[in-house]
Amino acid sequence: MRLGTVRRNGNTQAFRQEDGVTTYLPVRDVGELLTREDWRSLAGEQGPEPDPAALQAPILRPCKILCAGLNYYAHAAEVGQDVPKYPTIFTKYANALVGPTDDVVMPAASTRIDWEAELALVIGSTVRHADEAGAREAILGYTVLNDVSVRDWQGRTSEWFQGKNWDRTTPWGPVIVTADELDPEAGLAVECELDGVLKQSGTTADLIFSCAKLVSYVSEFMTLEPGDIIATGTPAGVGLARKPREWIPVGAELVTRIEGIGELRNRCVAE
Amino acid sequence: MRLGTVRRNGNTQAFRQEDGVTTYLPVRDVGELLTREDWRSLAGEQGPEPDPAALQAPILRPCKILCAGLNYYAHAAEVGQDVPKYPTIFTKYANALVGPTDDVVMPAASTRIDWEAELALVIGSTVRHADEAGAREAILGYTVLNDVSVRDWQGRTSEWFQGKNWDRTTPWGPVIVTADELDPEAGLAVECELDGVLKQSGTTADLIFSCAKLVSYVSEFMTLEPGDIIATGTPAGVGLARKPREWIPVGAELVTRIEGIGELRNRCVAE
Repeated sequence: MRLGTVRRNGNTQAFRQEDGVTTYLPVRDVGELLTREDWRSLAGEQGPEPDPAALQAPILRPCKILCAGLNYYAHAAEVGQDVPKYPTIFTKYANALVGPTDDVVMPAASTRIDWEAELALVIGSTVRHADEAGAREAILGYTVLNDVSVRDWQGRTSEWFQGKNWDRTTPWGPVIVTADELDPEAGLAVECELDGVLKQSGTTADLIFSCAKLVSYVSEFMTLEPGDIIATGTPAGVGLARKPREWIPVGAELVTRIEGIGELRNRCVAE
Repeated sequence: MRLGTVRRNGNTQAFRQEDGVTTYLPVRDVGELLTREDWRSLAGEQGPEPDPAALQAPILRPCKILCAGLNYYAHAAEVGQDVPKYPTIFTKYANALVGPTDDVVMPAASTRIDWEAELALVIGSTVRHADEAGAREAILGYTVLNDVSVRDWQGRTSEWFQGKNWDRTTPWGPVIVTADELDPEAGLAVECELDGVLKQSGTTADLIFSCAKLVSYVSEFMTLEPGDIIATGTPAGVGLARKPREWIPVGAELVTRIEGIGELRNRCVAE
């Protein structure tokens, strides 16, 4: 099953796709849909496939957006870190997010803006103190996110937050594919292209902490709730680790793609 | 003016206090109150002073809770850090919060749980790219927060998040005092007591980055909105920096007090 949010009839609306049938639902986004116990069967209006250019961020204003850092072996190595014993977790808020075809807004105060293609998971049920099996059951599904990072601000202090939360820098979507249809541990290709040049090409089989491990770990200290998002980290190939270093130029087209889910296609525009 | 939220008639309700008069307002908390343009004059029902034991967290489910680290000269020194050039910012979510007299829940997975008395500011108007004067105008008021920290988890990775977000560990309140009535730069006493023993005694005059500077700095990268909270950092005297180190024992009473605002009084109970 695929869940998404689309601009339609002058508003936004969630949709569900299953067995080739698209059903438009009487809620404004997937976030509102997940507050309904009957979200899998909620009645709606069948219609044509949504226009890809009209797709919005699946959840319009999520609150809790956690991000794992240093979670691929080759990425930890390229930035000079040992294989971590524990997941590194930082956060975003909704102001940082944009939809799958929206412009990414390039901060005028930085010249070191980098790409980070990532698989993100979306929580489907309230979870705390879960083992890996329980954590796996709490995962609603998977989506694509690019943790576009403002490296100079990220490195100003030990805490990366201020390099990760610039308004309208983090595209995500285009849809959430439910967990029964995808197995990240078996390996999904993760790719990032900048102006048509492939910059990252990894596989989720190389995640250090699997999706279930991340959810289990986080649930040890905090309650996760439906609609919460965890971005699982980026594979090798970021601009920071290239020799010479590379950054996103203003005007570039950034494409972020994960096998079995879809792609984000965002123009990076001046602030 | 003081704003708060109280348990009343089987529900929660915001109140406003001005010139000795308490007005109970037709909204469930200060967060909902701040969504009303007329919040300063919104009509309500006059009544007696609220029962201190019935006070709730002023905003029941805030989304954006930013925290400054290393923001007092003496505290930066006691943990071995230089005076920072930039504010260190990390985050919390609402799951971590409790009200001014609620129990603090001590994580069973840690034996290194520490206190951090802090002045917190609450944003009153949407703000981005503000200079210090503009930032000052965006501050609705001030409250008290104790950033109870799970030190072993905080130190597992570079990112402090996982030591700062355990469910129900961060008391705050008891009220928000509006900015026209308090001047943190002139110096407000900040105190933390554990079982009646004074552990921290600082003054907000020693903040490295003032409240207006913090808001201005954060607004450079992200939009702040009404109801967002910034905890401004803790003065010297935390358990981590004591010789020998000290931690909060299960069962302790934690009191956190700021001059001109009031106090939190929380029992620290086993999970």
